[in-house]
Amino acid sequence: MTDDRSPWPLAPPWRAARWFNAAEAPSLAALRGRVVVLHAFQMLCPGCVAHGLPQAKALYEQFAVYGVAVIGLHTVFEHHAAMTPVSLGAFIHEYRLEFPIGVDEPAGDGPVPLTMQAYGMRGTPTLVVIDQAGRIRLHRFGRVEDLAVGALIGRLLAGG
Amino acid sequence: MTDDRSPWPLAPPWRAARWFNAAEAPSLAALRGRVVVLHAFQMLCPGCVAHGLPQAKALYEQFAVYGVAVIGLHTVFEHHAAMTPVSLGAFIHEYRLEFPIGVDEPAGDGPVPLTMQAYGMRGTPTLVVIDQAGRIRLHRFGRVEDLAVGALIGRLLAGG
Amino acid sequence: MTDDRSPWPLAPPWRAARWFNAAEAPSLAALRGRVVVLHAFQMLCPGCVAHGLPQAKALYEQFAVYGVAVIGLHTVFEHHAAMTPVSLGAFIHEYRLEFPIGVDEPAGDGPVPLTMQAYGMRGTPTLVVIDQAGRIRLHRFGRVEDLAVGALIGRLLAGG
Amino acid sequence: MTDDRSPWPLAPPWRAARWFNAAEAPSLAALRGRVVVLHAFQMLCPGCVAHGLPQAKALYEQFAVYGVAVIGLHTVFEHHAAMTPVSLGAFIHEYRLEFPIGVDEPAGDGPVPLTMQAYGMRGTPTLVVIDQAGRIRLHRFGRVEDLAVGALIGRLLAGG
Repeated sequence: MTDDRSPWPLAPPWRAARWFNAAEAPSLAALRGRVVVLHAFQMLCPGCVAHGLPQAKALYEQFAVYGVAVIGLHTVFEHHAAMTPVSLGAFIHEYRLEFPIGVDEPAGDGPVPLTMQAYGMRGTPTLVVIDQAGRIRLHRFGRVEDLAVGALIGRLLAGG
Repeated sequence: MTDDRSPWPLAPPWRAARWFNAAEAPSLAALRGRVVVLHAFQMLCPGCVAHGLPQAKALYEQFAVYGVAVIGLHTVFEHHAAMTPVSLGAFIHEYRLEFPIGVDEPAGDGPVPLTMQAYGMRGTPTLVVIDQAGRIRLHRFGRVEDLAVGALIGRLLAGG
Repeated sequence: MTDDRSPWPLAPPWRAARWFNAAEAPSLAALRGRVVVLHAFQMLCPGCVAHGLPQAKALYEQFAVYGVAVIGLHTVFEHHAAMTPVSLGAFIHEYRLEFPIGVDEPAGDGPVPLTMQAYGMRGTPTLVVIDQAGRIRLHRFGRVEDLAVGALIGRLLAGG
Repeated sequence: MTDDRSPWPLAPPWRAARWFNAAEAPSLAALRGRVVVLHAFQMLCPGCVAHGLPQAKALYEQFAVYGVAVIGLHTVFEHHAAMTPVSLGAFIHEYRLEFPIGVDEPAGDGPVPLTMQAYGMRGTPTLVVIDQAGRIRLHRFGRVEDLAVGALIGRLLAGG
C-alpha cells in the first residue's frame, strides 16, 4: 500500500504498441521496488540524439548493476509517417541502444500518443525518474545535468 | 574541353530519384565552373549526424557566398525500409538542412544505389570535393578535418 | 566518536600554506557533519583544466545549497617555480573559480607536498569525496563520470 | 620588392625577449616567401587554452609540411608576475606545444608589450595570417572557424 500522504504523484502506467530490446513487455507495476528512469524521445529529435539518448545510455551503463531500470519510450507526436516502428528499429540498431524501448501507443483522435498524454509531457526529450514506490520524483523537458540526475538516483538508491 | 592529361578523375554524374531543397534538380554538368562539395550520408548513420552533416552545413554557411555548391546525397545502402524519402523529409526539416539533397537512385539488383556505385563509395559519411573542371580532388570516407577541407576549397577557389 | 569498525578510512587533515577564496582557513574537522569534495589539481595540468576543474566548479554550483563543501587543493609536485601562489592567484581569477582553494604545504625534503603525501595521491587531477563522518568514500586519480560522482553525493546526502 | 599598391598592410617585425622551441630566433624577414601564422596568447587566458592554442597546434600539424610557419607569441598584458618565462616554459612542456614561441618584449612604460602594440592587438587570443610577401591577410581577436582559416591558408598556398 502506498502512502497516500506522499507529496509525489503516482506515475501512471505506460502503454506501448510494441517493444524493442525486451523479451516481454516491461510494466511499471512489475518494476515496483526498483528505481525507474523513463526517457521519452523521438528518433528525429536533434536534442534527443545529441543529449537525451546518450544520457539514457550512460544511465543504463552506470546504474543497471544497482537495479535501476532504464526504459525508453518513443513518443511520436509529429512526423508520424517518418518515424514508424521499422525506422525506429534501424535507429535502435545503428545507435546501439540496449535498454528496452516501447512505442508509445497512438491515440485514435490526435497526434499525441497515450502515455505522453497521461504524463503530461510537453515535448522531447523528457526525463522522468520514478522511485521504488512508483512515484514521480523528477519530470523534466529538455536537458538535465548529469550531476543532478546522478544525485537523485543516488538518493533514491539510499532510500532517501 | 577538359584536359585529358589531368591526374584527377572526372566525377561521374549523380543520379537522384528525387530532390529536397531544390526547385529543379541540380546537375553536375550545370555546376561546371564552380567548386562542388558532395556529401553522401544516411539519416540513421551516427557518424553522419554527429560529424558529417554538421560539417556539410558549415561548408554551406561558410562558402556559399564564394560560389561553392554543397550537395547532399542520401545514399541508402542498408535499412532501406527505415530510411524512405518521407522519413528523410522529416529529418531534413528537424535538422534544419538547407542545401539541396538528392535521394540516390536505388539499383534494381542490389542494396547499393547507383551514384554510390558510380563513385565507388565505401560507406557513409563520404565527402567528395569536385573542382571547377568537374574533377574529383578529394574522396574520403569517414571524418575529415575542417582545416584540411577548408584548405582544399581555398586552393580551388584561388585556381590552384 | 566515529565508528571504529567502518570499512572506510578516516580522511587525514589537509595542510595548506595559504588559502584563496576563504576568509579563514577551512579545516576538515570544522566541516565534520557535511559532505566534502576535495579536488586536487595543478594549474598547469591539462587534464585538470579540461575536466577536473570544470567538474569541481559544477559540483560547487550544483551542491553548495545542499551543504556540500567543495575544497580545491593546489598540489604542486612538479614545475614548482612555474606554479607559485602568485601564478595560482591569477589562474583562479581568470578561470572564475569561487570555492576555497588551498596551497598544499611544500615538504622540506622532496617535491611532493604534505597533503598529497598524506592522502597517497598519485597525480592530478585527484577527486576525494569525504562523508559526514570524515571518512573517505571515493579517492580517484583521473577522470570520473559526473553520473557516478553525483550518485555518490546523492547517496551521502540521503545518509546512505 | 613588395607591391606598394597592395591593399594589405605590411606586418611589422615582432620583438621577443626570448624564444622557446627554437634554436635561433625566427624573424619575419627570414620567413619572407612562406605563409606565416602568428598566434598571440597568454598562458592563463581560458579562451586561448580552450580554442586558440589547440587551433595553432592543429595548424602546425596540418600545414608545416606545406611550408607554413606557425609562430606563437606570449603577449602578456595583465598578471605579469603570474606569467613569467619560467611559468610559460612549464606550460609549453605540459601542453606539448612544439612550434616556436616567443615572449613578446615588455614595454618599459606600460603593461602592453611591444609586438602587441605594433600590431594593434586588442586581447588574446589573436590570430594573424601573413602572406608570402609579408602582408597581413587576417587579423582577428577571439575565435575563428577552422574552415575559414583553412580556406585562407589554402588560397595563399595556391598563390591566390
